[in-house]
Amino acid sequence: MRVFGEIEGIAVGTEFASRAELAASGIHKPIQTGISGSESNGADSIVISGGYADDEDYGDYIVYMGQGGNDPVTKLQIADQELTRGNLALVVSYIRGLPVRVTRGLRSRHRTYRYDGLYLVERWWAEISRSGHKIFRYALRQINEKAVSTPSGELPLPTGSQEPDRVKSYTTRVVRDTAVAEMVKKIHTYQCQVCTELIQRPGGAYAEGAHIRPLGRPHNGPDTADNILCLCPNCHVLFSGWAFSIEDDGSFIGGMSGTLVEHEEHAVSRDHIAYHRRCYQRVIT
Amino acid sequence: MRVFGEIEGIAVGTEFASRAELAASGIHKPIQTGISGSESNGADSIVISGGYADDEDYGDYIVYMGQGGNDPVTKLQIADQELTRGNLALVVSYIRGLPVRVTRGLRSRHRTYRYDGLYLVERWWAEISRSGHKIFRYALRQINEKAVSTPSGELPLPTGSQEPDRVKSYTTRVVRDTAVAEMVKKIHTYQCQVCTELIQRPGGAYAEGAHIRPLGRPHNGPDTADNILCLCPNCHVLFSGWAFSIEDDGSFIGGMSGTLVEHEEHAVSRDHIAYHRRCYQRVIT
Repeated sequence: MRVFGEIEGIAVGTEFASRAELAASGIHKPIQTGISGSESNGADSIVISGGYADDEDYGDYIVYMGQGGNDPVTKLQIADQELTRGNLALVVSYIRGLPVRVTRGLRSRHRTYRYDGLYLVERWWAEISRSGHKIFRYALRQINEKAVSTPSGELPLPTGSQEPDRVKSYTTRVVRDTAVAEMVKKIHTYQCQVCTELIQRPGGAYAEGAHIRPLGRPHNGPDTADNILCLCPNCHVLFSGWAFSIEDDGSFIGGMSGTLVEHEEHAVSRDHIAYHRRCYQRVIT
Repeated sequence: MRVFGEIEGIAVGTEFASRAELAASGIHKPIQTGISGSESNGADSIVISGGYADDEDYGDYIVYMGQGGNDPVTKLQIADQELTRGNLALVVSYIRGLPVRVTRGLRSRHRTYRYDGLYLVERWWAEISRSGHKIFRYALRQINEKAVSTPSGELPLPTGSQEPDRVKSYTTRVVRDTAVAEMVKKIHTYQCQVCTELIQRPGGAYAEGAHIRPLGRPHNGPDTADNILCLCPNCHVLFSGWAFSIEDDGSFIGGMSGTLVEHEEHAVSRDHIAYHRRCYQRVIT
């Protein structure tokens, strides 16, 4: 079974003497390939080893190149890369927000490997390599900034060698999904239960899991399928921002017309709907 | 001028002997009110002082009650709160993702105040207080987890007294906006430049600033208005995920029909559009 996230018992910073040892730990199972993953479930780990000249390593931010199309001996790009296998798996991780374990090959005399923690695929794109072939690239950012990692090499990065000139920004919205939410989204094949919109992009569809009765204090809504809706980002923003709510018969009230799309494999709790409706009514009256 | 974010020279953890001293530092300017902010620009700081029995303090997560409707002497709720002034300002901070400085009143013999860092309004809602009146509540989460703060009191929180049972989740999407993006969104009055959708919620409209040529390595797009589009969340997800791109004449190519809505006060760079289009074409071919 493919494990996303931390591997129990393996701390960030753990070193391995070989790819075989790294594979045995469960951190990165393939012995040869840099990307571990599947097209349907996403990528769970990568190794950045300096084998590709186009990788860029800024410590907490990595620009990683996709796989394929290069000569195994010279490492030169001799053909286009394709959006399949590991390359597609990293796009799936991007779409679903799955954490990717990053291991660095260290430039010591006898090459060793160090597990450097979890990263998120922040963006992906395609470009033309110096040799004129199409390659895929992925920008990954470290999830937990407390665990500062350094690029391949024995010494920590000097201050100032991190990604330069990062623009000052506010976080306006963070979308978090749980394993149960992912299941609900699959049942609805990522189609919005409110407006029926399907956000289809290269690599796959996108939707968000919206907890009807919010998680966390003081609402303490449960992380169960009957408390989750599969929504497009727009309807999610409207639903969590009290622009509309839902009657027990599924019809919308407030600034939205229509009726909730329901699926026989996914029962939506009327108690949780009523909780949302009460909050909504108090906000607007 | 209202400053959002850190105040230069005042470290997280700084203590103040009085509200007057706290005000003079710039951390929280009003002497009496718990919320500092304006209805048009948002709230820049709050003081959590235990004056309201309904506040809940879990350290890095706070459930904060809105202002108004309480008897100044008994502190009891005697009337409904309204979505105006500080209460509306906190909703604006929620919509725009503005950082809110949090100061805690410490329960010592002579009350002192401690600046405890930046929080984001993660959610807001209305409920009925124990006395039967409508109150507004805001869930705030600390932005920088490195700066661990403790609730009001002399002692740090014991392990385990933080917000209990936090559900394990993935981050699927983080929306960051810059000051320039906020300006662009205002010019378009938060209407999507692609689909013309206006995401209107109680407290104000919502849009996202999308950099056409991405910020950060290796794209190094500039944080300037001519490189930013005002988009609804759905179109943002589609645009950054290579579902469509834009021709120089503003018409869309790929899975989107129509033409970019442009405003005379906001010129969109054709160079940056061409950069996005090249990436798009490489992804889909």
